[in-house]
Amino acid sequence: MEHFYSLESLSEIEIMNLITMSHELRHKTCTFHTPLVAANLFFEPSTRTKNSFLMAEKKLGMETVDFSPETSSMKKGESLYDTVKTFEAIGANALVIRHEADDWLNELEHQINIPIINAGAGKREHPTQCLLDAATIHHEFKHFKGLKVVIAGDIKHSRVAHSNAALLSRLGAEVYLSGAPSYKDEHMQFPFIRMDEAVEMADVLMLLRIQHERHADQVDQVKDYHEKYGLTLAREKRMKDHAIILHPAPINRGVEIASSLVECEKSRIFEQMTNGVYVRMAVLTKKLLQWGIIHENQINECFTTGGQPITALCRAH
Amino acid sequence: MEHFYSLESLSEIEIMNLITMSHELRHKTCTFHTPLVAANLFFEPSTRTKNSFLMAEKKLGMETVDFSPETSSMKKGESLYDTVKTFEAIGANALVIRHEADDWLNELEHQINIPIINAGAGKREHPTQCLLDAATIHHEFKHFKGLKVVIAGDIKHSRVAHSNAALLSRLGAEVYLSGAPSYKDEHMQFPFIRMDEAVEMADVLMLLRIQHERHADQVDQVKDYHEKYGLTLAREKRMKDHAIILHPAPINRGVEIASSLVECEKSRIFEQMTNGVYVRMAVLTKKLLQWGIIHENQINECFTTGGQPITALCRAH
Amino acid sequence: MEHFYSLESLSEIEIMNLITMSHELRHKTCTFHTPLVAANLFFEPSTRTKNSFLMAEKKLGMETVDFSPETSSMKKGESLYDTVKTFEAIGANALVIRHEADDWLNELEHQINIPIINAGAGKREHPTQCLLDAATIHHEFKHFKGLKVVIAGDIKHSRVAHSNAALLSRLGAEVYLSGAPSYKDEHMQFPFIRMDEAVEMADVLMLLRIQHERHADQVDQVKDYHEKYGLTLAREKRMKDHAIILHPAPINRGVEIASSLVECEKSRIFEQMTNGVYVRMAVLTKKLLQWGIIHENQINECFTTGGQPITALCRAH
Repeated sequence: MEHFYSLESLSEIEIMNLITMSHELRHKTCTFHTPLVAANLFFEPSTRTKNSFLMAEKKLGMETVDFSPETSSMKKGESLYDTVKTFEAIGANALVIRHEADDWLNELEHQINIPIINAGAGKREHPTQCLLDAATIHHEFKHFKGLKVVIAGDIKHSRVAHSNAALLSRLGAEVYLSGAPSYKDEHMQFPFIRMDEAVEMADVLMLLRIQHERHADQVDQVKDYHEKYGLTLAREKRMKDHAIILHPAPINRGVEIASSLVECEKSRIFEQMTNGVYVRMAVLTKKLLQWGIIHENQINECFTTGGQPITALCRAH
Repeated sequence: MEHFYSLESLSEIEIMNLITMSHELRHKTCTFHTPLVAANLFFEPSTRTKNSFLMAEKKLGMETVDFSPETSSMKKGESLYDTVKTFEAIGANALVIRHEADDWLNELEHQINIPIINAGAGKREHPTQCLLDAATIHHEFKHFKGLKVVIAGDIKHSRVAHSNAALLSRLGAEVYLSGAPSYKDEHMQFPFIRMDEAVEMADVLMLLRIQHERHADQVDQVKDYHEKYGLTLAREKRMKDHAIILHPAPINRGVEIASSLVECEKSRIFEQMTNGVYVRMAVLTKKLLQWGIIHENQINECFTTGGQPITALCRAH
Repeated sequence: MEHFYSLESLSEIEIMNLITMSHELRHKTCTFHTPLVAANLFFEPSTRTKNSFLMAEKKLGMETVDFSPETSSMKKGESLYDTVKTFEAIGANALVIRHEADDWLNELEHQINIPIINAGAGKREHPTQCLLDAATIHHEFKHFKGLKVVIAGDIKHSRVAHSNAALLSRLGAEVYLSGAPSYKDEHMQFPFIRMDEAVEMADVLMLLRIQHERHADQVDQVKDYHEKYGLTLAREKRMKDHAIILHPAPINRGVEIASSLVECEKSRIFEQMTNGVYVRMAVLTKKLLQWGIIHENQINECFTTGGQPITALCRAH
């Protein structure tokens, strides 16, 4: 049985199924009819992702416990493994984990007998963020093939940039990168273009947050970042009519995007957060079914559209 | 549609309806039959008010998420607006907010499409505290007309003092103020009387907490505060038979009130806390009905008294 | 009506009933059919015990609120009594409390009208930990009579050591102590033996955590502790075939126990954590029934084994 750590190990059909499920969940109530508990272990702080998972779990009818080392006596002298194993031992049915190590799954993978969902692994993987971005694009355009997606910002330090570029390219999109030259990542093979070119070409303009905390020494560059590399009011005017703007948040208003554009017509920024909950509901449901922790007849699906039942999507592949 | 920010914008009938609802809720189970989530965002710490709201929400059958900046990665560089909008985006059905600014609603008012309940705004408004005090008085005397209410303590720095004086006066009570002269607020038009006079005249003696943290330089005055301005054992003996004592807590035992009087026969201090939960249940129910987030037929009311159905009270005005 | 503070005040029959209930709960779903809220007040941090209680409450169908002073505005200037009374006033139906004082129940005992469950009192009492250790032993051997139990480690500073020695001896086991001579407690009457003797004699080897935080000055002794007094790979080989290893966690791997033995065949360390949830469910159910807060007909028991109904066990004595 597999945990949910990286999208790389999923087939395109499996990924499309999760995206389709997340769309279905907008219109259906999918609730478990058996009491299950999700443990949300955030060794690295992340209120946004944590609350999105909590909301997903509560909407599925799960109980939740959550753990943050800053308010906990647990971290001192205790290994990641022992902490995680403790939550399995006290009866959690699924684990949502964020940890600052890039490869924290390694020591857990074969020893934990409930599904683990990756909510962020160091600078490397954040698969549900990646999936929610893809779901938002797919909900807009109904396909990925040939879409021009520009990922703009601090490419080098962003775990989202790497995963999104790989996934969207794999699903058929044409990926471009943009941003300050110092943020360029020499290891990424996608074309690096100027922002002025990007806004005219993009179907999807995916802005990244300037990660102040990760390189505080470059504050000077941040100051004029907006004019040189950000989405200004002037640049937005040159975007295609049907183009959309994405941002994983939290937003530095006036840095990577002009404040008044955050909720402009092209922006899907808050819709991304909404989709995040549906994507996480889809992943949780799929994993709990796969692991046999819940069975199809314990899920109540309230059909409000003519779509496929969610459990059928889970069953597929 | 209106948020719940201040009692000033409500008519006296609307306020009396909320008070009556809070009385009804003592004897009735009022539970929502549809899954709803309340997000409790406390930008300023407040365990007491937060837990009272959490309890109210849980008693109504709502799920809860809660957010405190001290344990969060969210505040850094993110505006109040973006944080609040995030919780709306991930699916909260109601927002309970406390923030240190006096006027935090301004930037949210027309942009957030779910009801916001004010759980404390700087030094200005704390309407559910105000309402629970009024509900406690009304539960005792069944009316406000002509009641002599003395608010005693740090009038100047207390958001409760200002709101309560205005509300109770509006509902028909005669309001007096008392306390150390340095705590007097020149802008308040109510008579300022000595404590020795207050205890003999009051039907309701509403003590305030000495706010050490707000004026730490006046510690000397605090020391003999009890003898000069507090409710001593001797003063309590001179109170009217039917008079009651209120305090919003936390209590400085031995400062504004003698420790042994905290649970004396006249004290309604812990009953206020109990009423706080009912008042918050009333406000939440009313707002969710008004906004169309819940409908009357999704509320289960278990009648144990012969009173009016809660939804009828909500519907009125 | 009695709170649950110490096992000393319970008869052996009452203790055995709780242990039997915890065994029954492995195979039965026991859920309350009326909405109840447990308040978990941890004045001393304890993520492990707190999450075990939260899990127990959620499995019983209770709602939960939890309070930690480190994230709270409540502690400043407020007495333990006032904080606890507040949670009673806002409608909690049961209180789970940990506090650093040895005798915190004294000031609460006769004033709080809902059951209080002790989740740790200073260095003295931690009755549910004690009970889960006994339940784990009983689940293994089906009896206590004549079992040789060695408690090994920092006897002097461990609240678990004292309570467990007293309880297990009372239930019929032969208790021995082991560990570094400096950890010996002159007031305990049980034989103090060397670790090399202990491993050969023990049916149950109960290791304790070296409490770094309680005596940081003895770090030197900790370094070679493992070789002299810990459970090394070599010592484990000399244990009886049927012997089991217990540890209350968190584990200092490589100090009191070799890392690779934590999940060895004889280890019941993670099973103890699982049993902790069942034991806490048993205690909560028993107390809520005793206090009349829940009634037998509000408990749904889903029988999956031929055992006694849980409510019958609660009723007994």
